[in-house]
Amino acid sequence: MKHDDALHRLKNVEGHLRGIQKMIEDDKYCIDVIQQINAAQAALNKVSSMILEGHLNSCLITAVRGDNPDDRERVLQEIADVFEAATKV
Amino acid sequence: MKHDDALHRLKNVEGHLRGIQKMIEDDKYCIDVIQQINAAQAALNKVSSMILEGHLNSCLITAVRGDNPDDRERVLQEIADVFEAATKV
Amino acid sequence: MKHDDALHRLKNVEGHLRGIQKMIEDDKYCIDVIQQINAAQAALNKVSSMILEGHLNSCLITAVRGDNPDDRERVLQEIADVFEAATKV
Amino acid sequence: MKHDDALHRLKNVEGHLRGIQKMIEDDKYCIDVIQQINAAQAALNKVSSMILEGHLNSCLITAVRGDNPDDRERVLQEIADVFEAATKV
Repeated sequence: MKHDDALHRLKNVEGHLRGIQKMIEDDKYCIDVIQQINAAQAALNKVSSMILEGHLNSCLITAVRGDNPDDRERVLQEIADVFEAATKV
Repeated sequence: MKHDDALHRLKNVEGHLRGIQKMIEDDKYCIDVIQQINAAQAALNKVSSMILEGHLNSCLITAVRGDNPDDRERVLQEIADVFEAATKV
Repeated sequence: MKHDDALHRLKNVEGHLRGIQKMIEDDKYCIDVIQQINAAQAALNKVSSMILEGHLNSCLITAVRGDNPDDRERVLQEIADVFEAATKV
Repeated sequence: MKHDDALHRLKNVEGHLRGIQKMIEDDKYCIDVIQQINAAQAALNKVSSMILEGHLNSCLITAVRGDNPDDRERVLQEIADVFEAATKV
């Protein structure tokens, strides 16, 4: 189930961050630390994408098919907003 | 109309890029050039977001309300994909 | 000291990720979860930037002033590479 | 020479943006338009990276080896700043 997958991935990123803290304590090379942070961020991006995909296939469908135009507009606007936030340079 | 706004913005970015080429030819300071490229990219992000918003309010609504589950799935998957592409570190 | 600040921030992001896992377990609204993940990523970006700044002010200066051209080239190339990785759409 | 390569790439992106305007005028599918904008942005990222690399191998080396600590600090700070701008979510 999607939920469990997202939780599992977040737990992994948490462990990854602890490893990165260890790298800093052990004075590992800065560039290696930065690359590990990049990897943690790529993993978080994946989680965001999975959650958005779940949202599109549930809340969005319900709102678009529902009778409430305000609900629909709100849900579509939220998706446009998270997309805009994601594309920020 | 949304279309015209997106076209207008793309035309502006085109002019911006010509200005940046001029900066390079004139040997302007590299960091200033990079900041102008960043600004051009922020403008392109805005155009992407506007186009996605238009898409959500037209094609997406049609597909989600339509009778064709394949169409709906395809449209939702495409949106999930552009979001994932946008979040790539 | 820079080190402690980076460690402190990473520890905070770790706690943030645990909070996000709790949000998912409690079935919080997807869009709110995505926004919290965005916030965690912004915090990680800050840590990367701090570490790079430390690197520029230490290893880079040593390498550029040193007698070893290979060392210097390597260090400059690494910085160019992390910048390129950071700008990936 | 690096300069010419950056100019050439910027000219290409300019042409690409004209093509994207044509796509919008011809009412091409939104998702295809967004993907083309992504491609233009990836090309701009490449130009930024090339310019930064040139900067590291010229101005930066001069500043770090020079006698003026203010110059050096300024140049290092600028690089830290463009990196931070590049990583903004």
